[in-house]
Amino acid sequence: MTSKVYTLAELANFIDAQLVGDSNVEISDLAALQSASAGQLSFLANPKYLQFLETTRASAVIVDHASAEHCTVGALVVKDPYMAYAKITQLFDQSIHRSPGIHSSAVIEAGCDIGSEVTIAANVVIEQGCTIGNNVIIGAGCVIGANCIIGESSTLNANVTLYHSVKVGCRAVLHSGVVIGADGFGFANDQGRWEKIYQLGAVCIGDDVEVGANTCIDRGALSDTKIGNGVKLDNHIQIGHNVIIGEHSAVAAGTAIAGSAEIGKNCTIAGAVGIAGHLSIADNVHVTGMSMVSSSLKTAGVYSSGTALTDNKTWRKNTARLRKLDEYMKRLLKLEKKMGQAVEPRK
Amino acid sequence: MTSKVYTLAELANFIDAQLVGDSNVEISDLAALQSASAGQLSFLANPKYLQFLETTRASAVIVDHASAEHCTVGALVVKDPYMAYAKITQLFDQSIHRSPGIHSSAVIEAGCDIGSEVTIAANVVIEQGCTIGNNVIIGAGCVIGANCIIGESSTLNANVTLYHSVKVGCRAVLHSGVVIGADGFGFANDQGRWEKIYQLGAVCIGDDVEVGANTCIDRGALSDTKIGNGVKLDNHIQIGHNVIIGEHSAVAAGTAIAGSAEIGKNCTIAGAVGIAGHLSIADNVHVTGMSMVSSSLKTAGVYSSGTALTDNKTWRKNTARLRKLDEYMKRLLKLEKKMGQAVEPRK
Amino acid sequence: MTSKVYTLAELANFIDAQLVGDSNVEISDLAALQSASAGQLSFLANPKYLQFLETTRASAVIVDHASAEHCTVGALVVKDPYMAYAKITQLFDQSIHRSPGIHSSAVIEAGCDIGSEVTIAANVVIEQGCTIGNNVIIGAGCVIGANCIIGESSTLNANVTLYHSVKVGCRAVLHSGVVIGADGFGFANDQGRWEKIYQLGAVCIGDDVEVGANTCIDRGALSDTKIGNGVKLDNHIQIGHNVIIGEHSAVAAGTAIAGSAEIGKNCTIAGAVGIAGHLSIADNVHVTGMSMVSSSLKTAGVYSSGTALTDNKTWRKNTARLRKLDEYMKRLLKLEKKMGQAVEPRK
Repeated sequence: MTSKVYTLAELANFIDAQLVGDSNVEISDLAALQSASAGQLSFLANPKYLQFLETTRASAVIVDHASAEHCTVGALVVKDPYMAYAKITQLFDQSIHRSPGIHSSAVIEAGCDIGSEVTIAANVVIEQGCTIGNNVIIGAGCVIGANCIIGESSTLNANVTLYHSVKVGCRAVLHSGVVIGADGFGFANDQGRWEKIYQLGAVCIGDDVEVGANTCIDRGALSDTKIGNGVKLDNHIQIGHNVIIGEHSAVAAGTAIAGSAEIGKNCTIAGAVGIAGHLSIADNVHVTGMSMVSSSLKTAGVYSSGTALTDNKTWRKNTARLRKLDEYMKRLLKLEKKMGQAVEPRK
Repeated sequence: MTSKVYTLAELANFIDAQLVGDSNVEISDLAALQSASAGQLSFLANPKYLQFLETTRASAVIVDHASAEHCTVGALVVKDPYMAYAKITQLFDQSIHRSPGIHSSAVIEAGCDIGSEVTIAANVVIEQGCTIGNNVIIGAGCVIGANCIIGESSTLNANVTLYHSVKVGCRAVLHSGVVIGADGFGFANDQGRWEKIYQLGAVCIGDDVEVGANTCIDRGALSDTKIGNGVKLDNHIQIGHNVIIGEHSAVAAGTAIAGSAEIGKNCTIAGAVGIAGHLSIADNVHVTGMSMVSSSLKTAGVYSSGTALTDNKTWRKNTARLRKLDEYMKRLLKLEKKMGQAVEPRK
Repeated sequence: MTSKVYTLAELANFIDAQLVGDSNVEISDLAALQSASAGQLSFLANPKYLQFLETTRASAVIVDHASAEHCTVGALVVKDPYMAYAKITQLFDQSIHRSPGIHSSAVIEAGCDIGSEVTIAANVVIEQGCTIGNNVIIGAGCVIGANCIIGESSTLNANVTLYHSVKVGCRAVLHSGVVIGADGFGFANDQGRWEKIYQLGAVCIGDDVEVGANTCIDRGALSDTKIGNGVKLDNHIQIGHNVIIGEHSAVAAGTAIAGSAEIGKNCTIAGAVGIAGHLSIADNVHVTGMSMVSSSLKTAGVYSSGTALTDNKTWRKNTARLRKLDEYMKRLLKLEKKMGQAVEPRK
């Protein structure tokens, strides 16, 4: 495959940077400071890597004003090098961009409204009544249930499945294995047997949402499950029925969010977190990895649970003690009392 | 899409309810008490929502006898409103029900026995020797390995994968992305290298089982992995080889059950639980979310592990102490001893 | 389906065992000691099952020299019965082995190099520029992005998805629902909005790797995500961008490994473990189930975190105490001080 090549001047222009050095230098790739070689562009976003700046073999580096003086190769000087790096990555994306068109093997049922410049790959199935916006790309093997709406310029990678009546906004990216609109987990217990509660809601996904590989977003029980604009979901995430995720929140891989939980805006939920159902989380809440959220979080902040890793032998001892923690603490309180001391007022 | 419309009289008849109000009122949808509007039916299952009953704009509400007097609109009076609601949801299901038939793009290999009134969607692949019962629905893109048996009236949503020799009972619902019968994780270590143990068993799934999106059930090493009648599995669940799950147990999303674990009947396992291999769990055990089950549970009851969420700063302090808990508890015991006191007999 | 049948002599020869008993006995299947019947072969690998050896109805048993004397039926005597069992399982694998060939419904784009004796099943899509080695098997519904390379004798089960430019070594087994090469989760925050960082690296998978159902391996941000030779990954695993896993390590189901983590060789990571990003784990590290690894592990050993299961009532009490553990421990230290005692030097 052939890489695209840009001059340093073109790149400076693209990210609105001040160019220091030879504006004709050609850049064909991006790389980390330590591993970059000639023809590659790098960036310095974290001061702890400053040591690598002077010895990098990159042809140029994106730096901020403070670091620019340490740069011995071409420099693209900007206020925020990490953001500039992020923006410039799209120029070097090696994904194959196909010419629009509908593959002969695709099955498109009656009553669909397919926009212009749409790409529909092999073996795609689009059931009746769907609306597919302009410039949408649908990868091979995707199945789109009846009456779905997909907004302009969204991309479904291969083997995505949408159930019926799912709405996806514009510029969404859905990765392979994603399942949207499967039934929420709803059953009523009838003397030991489970009666299915049919899930009558749908899923509504905003604009600029990315959904990682094999992530599931279930349809609502009565009203819709809702994913706000700009939300970013990593792989292997479970979103239960009627969950609402506020705009521009991001959730890392392996997190499970139970039904009817409501997550605020601009939250970051780290990986493998569990969030119980029927609770609400305020805007700007940050939850660290593997935490268990079992009640509402009403104020912004950083929250955690879980225990730290130790060698297994120590862990076994500590765990045995922890199982009796309440008993031990009662003994501690008795000791205090016996010594005529309440060390500090009990909260 | 057009909704189905029922009169209140028809609905009362369907759930065997006492009708209070105008039997000709038309109902086209279900909604929660707070959000319902004219033409919608709601329900009151939890007394804490009683406040919403008097102000609901629903055209009718499913209530129990005690709440009926507070209902200012049409009422369907039953003993168990939640169960009545569950039953009535099926009437309002918006899923598209297709006419039976086999799509021209489906590939059905030799030696298959396909029942009557079967629906096989586009791009389905059914390998040799399969038996597909009457009224089965197989969604687009499903791949069914050789020698599988699928019981009557089961539904496979789009993009389900069954490996060879999997048996699925009657009235099962398998959601998209489900993989049944992949190899169990079996390897023997040969001086640092892993020798594959071929997985010679299969998977046997009972009647009335629901399996959520992207859930995996591995085939057995020698004998079969077995899922009992009426079991309900949520999304993103991992069932290891030779696991046995008893009838009418339910498992929530993200739970992983390691090989050869045996779960009893009528258990409920919450989300993101981990269950170690080669243990057994009694009937009627309930495990709360994110718990780690590492030994057998011989009696019915509710079990938990994990730590509660706090602000990150407090968590850091507590975690540091917890790492030394055994040491601290030894110091507590020494203090007790020094004071000539064994506060309570040690268990 | 018909089973293969072997004489005991053939099996003894295959695993290089000493045969005790009738060499003409026919074996058609493998089974556990307790459940085996005539015509089946069993094995005794764990001394605790010795009790079942004398009463087994198996026609023969793989045993070590010490146990051979207790064997009342045919015996295949070897040094390591478990390894011998592992090797012999491949003889009884019931998977259907198809004749090589390309199904008429498969879509293979221009510029692909397809080896000899390759099997490509129905509805497979192979995009432009791929290289498929000899004897590769690609199951129904697989989608292989542009410019992928798949080594000789690898098997992709049905519905596997590879994004562009993924390299898979020889003799790999990828199970259904696997997604390799989806975008790593990379975004830069621009005043509350997330700017996508295009993921320019790829994924490079070594020889003899097995990847379990629905596992995801993300492509690298700049350089490649790398899975070493002989690595075995179970189902539902998340491998973030730029992760490196050393040769012959094994990871159990449900584990999530965040971006840029580096796992050593010959490690075993149990199920549902969370490993934070940008850390490194030494060779021969073993992490127990559901542990949280949040910093580097520099020496071989067994590591754990998490809390043990109790009944829910006890758990609630312990958890409440744990939330105030730091406060309680300060009170303990004050008590010690008051008693003029520092029980042991503080670490």
